[in-house]
Amino acid sequence: MNKNQQNLLSKIATGNGHGENSPYFDGWKAFEDNPFHPTDNPHGVIQMGLAENQLSFDLVEEWLKKNPEASICTPEGVNDFRDIAIFQDYHGLTKFRNAVANFMEKVRGNRVRFDPDRIVMSGGATGAHEMTVFCLADPGDAFLVPTPYYPGFDRDLRWRTGAQLVPVVCERSNDFKVTREALEAAYKSAQEANIRVKGLLITNPSNPLGTILDRDTLRMVVSFINEKSIHLVCDEIYAATVFAQPGFISIAEIIQEKEIECNHDLIHIVYSLSKDLGFPGFRVGIVYSYNDAVVSCCRKMSSFGLVSSQTQHLIASMLSDDEFVNKFIKGSADRLATRHKVFTTGLAKVGISCLQSNAGLFVWMDLHHLLKEQTFEAEMELWQVIINKVKLNVSPGSSFHCSAPGWFRVCFANMDDQTMNVALTRIESFVIQNNETSTTVPMKRQYWQKPQRLSFKSRRMDDIMMAQCLMSPHSPLPQSPLVRARN
Amino acid sequence: MNKNQQNLLSKIATGNGHGENSPYFDGWKAFEDNPFHPTDNPHGVIQMGLAENQLSFDLVEEWLKKNPEASICTPEGVNDFRDIAIFQDYHGLTKFRNAVANFMEKVRGNRVRFDPDRIVMSGGATGAHEMTVFCLADPGDAFLVPTPYYPGFDRDLRWRTGAQLVPVVCERSNDFKVTREALEAAYKSAQEANIRVKGLLITNPSNPLGTILDRDTLRMVVSFINEKSIHLVCDEIYAATVFAQPGFISIAEIIQEKEIECNHDLIHIVYSLSKDLGFPGFRVGIVYSYNDAVVSCCRKMSSFGLVSSQTQHLIASMLSDDEFVNKFIKGSADRLATRHKVFTTGLAKVGISCLQSNAGLFVWMDLHHLLKEQTFEAEMELWQVIINKVKLNVSPGSSFHCSAPGWFRVCFANMDDQTMNVALTRIESFVIQNNETSTTVPMKRQYWQKPQRLSFKSRRMDDIMMAQCLMSPHSPLPQSPLVRARN
Repeated sequence: MNKNQQNLLSKIATGNGHGENSPYFDGWKAFEDNPFHPTDNPHGVIQMGLAENQLSFDLVEEWLKKNPEASICTPEGVNDFRDIAIFQDYHGLTKFRNAVANFMEKVRGNRVRFDPDRIVMSGGATGAHEMTVFCLADPGDAFLVPTPYYPGFDRDLRWRTGAQLVPVVCERSNDFKVTREALEAAYKSAQEANIRVKGLLITNPSNPLGTILDRDTLRMVVSFINEKSIHLVCDEIYAATVFAQPGFISIAEIIQEKEIECNHDLIHIVYSLSKDLGFPGFRVGIVYSYNDAVVSCCRKMSSFGLVSSQTQHLIASMLSDDEFVNKFIKGSADRLATRHKVFTTGLAKVGISCLQSNAGLFVWMDLHHLLKEQTFEAEMELWQVIINKVKLNVSPGSSFHCSAPGWFRVCFANMDDQTMNVALTRIESFVIQNNETSTTVPMKRQYWQKPQRLSFKSRRMDDIMMAQCLMSPHSPLPQSPLVRARN
Repeated sequence: MNKNQQNLLSKIATGNGHGENSPYFDGWKAFEDNPFHPTDNPHGVIQMGLAENQLSFDLVEEWLKKNPEASICTPEGVNDFRDIAIFQDYHGLTKFRNAVANFMEKVRGNRVRFDPDRIVMSGGATGAHEMTVFCLADPGDAFLVPTPYYPGFDRDLRWRTGAQLVPVVCERSNDFKVTREALEAAYKSAQEANIRVKGLLITNPSNPLGTILDRDTLRMVVSFINEKSIHLVCDEIYAATVFAQPGFISIAEIIQEKEIECNHDLIHIVYSLSKDLGFPGFRVGIVYSYNDAVVSCCRKMSSFGLVSSQTQHLIASMLSDDEFVNKFIKGSADRLATRHKVFTTGLAKVGISCLQSNAGLFVWMDLHHLLKEQTFEAEMELWQVIINKVKLNVSPGSSFHCSAPGWFRVCFANMDDQTMNVALTRIESFVIQNNETSTTVPMKRQYWQKPQRLSFKSRRMDDIMMAQCLMSPHSPLPQSPLVRARN
């Protein structure tokens, strides 16, 4: 961009706050340039960087066929068209809010109640996070975020709000658990840097770990934020992807415990239908706040990203059908469990372990033993081999601000069984070949000792963890897929 | 809000930048409290504050019945469901961008071409305006906006961006035309106040005037912004509501004229399907920029307010059908022309004139002769009578920052013929009664000499024109309808 353009545009437009100059998105580009297809392009890149749930669409399609009136474009439903198309209140259709509250309750085992009047619409979880930050923080204020965390937060929470993120460093030695010590350390480091901490953001189930927070951890988190009088934003967008015991515990359940002291004005849940139902295209994001002023303000802000009334109508019809909801929640969990087992068993066969998990649409794969040295530079080199030679788009841990090198997030629910098997076969071949070359043909190792097609700059952990503008200048992606990367 | 809450929340959340403390929205509340219904509530308030196009839904419904495959919820279309639901790229469906470009061209008489790759999605025009400002202006920077202008701009352009609006005062004596002198005066006043002007925002057709900008004015505007090297944002969301000669001229047409010198990087169009097609609930907003960097940045920002892929699919199917599009554009204009004529003729019968117009979903009604004095306080008093006694929710000119008292915006396309006739009858009765009381029973005039149910603070024109936070503190609306008020 030339200087004249820079003067014409805003600092936001001319800066890198969009966060797309990252290996996380370079992987997307590699996929888009050469996407796998079982017959047309069997040697293409398989997309394992997309946390999308494609395993249960048949359940939805079955429901749709039985309920044509849910569409406003059929003879059965067209009479509703004008009422739906004109409707534009930012409270949303009452039946939509009721149905979403109903779904959220069922996903949480009916152990909590959600008030439909606290359901605020947003443009996906992306918009929900930004709205929440706009309401809670002034420019320069910060949120604590345990690492590793979803790379999109660096954009969603900071770009237009001017807020900062302070990493809470979670350790490999502790299975990346959120501890009181880590929270206190991050809080203290912010104070020392004269940064005002306004809140803590957690993802439960965790993205990228696929783990859930246990009751004691959640109680500790509530106690921490209540003592500091800072907000707690719980991103629970993977709540219905929990497919094995122990079950999911929502923050909503914790704060209703008798023994828990907590100012409810500090508690906010971000939800979405993108992961649990697999409808990311529909852009159904939700802010559920226990703070009346936040509900009121978010509702006004939601006008910048309301859910299409056509989609509200469909979702309202679908999610108010209890029989369908029960069947879907159970069926989806079963399928995720099966897929997870097939995938992790396949990895284990060639000596690859993953962090033990029971949720999410991904696993947190440990390849640190394949690094030539325990650095993030070596992680990047290995990642390039995986992208360029093995042709799998997995996401390197450094892009999630992980404190230890050698971890990769691998999505397993956005493809059919056949593609999954191809991916597993490729990983197996790679590991076997790598073992062979390591032991018998050392010359061949050079193929992953220097960067391949994709270019990037190596960076120190400190840079990654603390940089306000995450990545160094990098050629922008012409067809950048950031939005699909909400995962 | 107590002090503790204020400390917990952001300045944005605790301020009044949402702009809802305004008589414009008080009128909405009066309607919502007591909405007219022909049989259930025949003495209720008729909503004439909503610029919604409900006159041509039968054309849309006819198309829908013939095209069930446009729905992804029918036996004909359900096979597309999974492909649509998962799709989430922020470029949008290619067929959607092509169809929108096609529609925009047809609305503009096929005299210009729109490049589908410059079509960026947003959450309605609301989101489109905010995105544009985020890209073009830093906090404190300003946009010039000719008055009278749509009250929502005070929120959409300023609230979260921190940008300012500087009114360009257009005069009644000149039929509120935008002149070079008025632009220069506004620009100069901003400079004197050390405010950096980054752009000019015009609505064409004008909301609230219902007039279109002629070729000479558009050329002058382009020349002005080019000389100052500031941006021009053209809000053309009413482009297809032009129902009489002279025809609409888009800014796109002007800048392709050979004799026009203009840096195209300065030109941006905001569009929407909310007014022209009557689908405000679908939240289809568009930024069309001639500046590559703005297209790129807006596209990234659009992730906060993407159009539901379900709606993209429907719109793509509908607007790529040339036969339908041609029929709709012609049919809708014919119906608007008829409605406009019936309404203005009815008003003329009782001596009420409107600014001569040929576009929009409203008229700019002149009641200055009914004011007891030519002040905005008197305008408010008259408005209260209209709301509370005549029971019509029309919008006072002061809420549009009009420079002269006594004008009201009255929407005429959001109701059926029967309701329209009731509204006309009420206006006629009111004027006749008013004339009688003025001449024969002066005592009765007192009923509109003091404020009735709704409370407000009178304010000086200077306050209205220059206040950064538009309105004085005022009890917030519990069920505030701001979003519906995009009109």
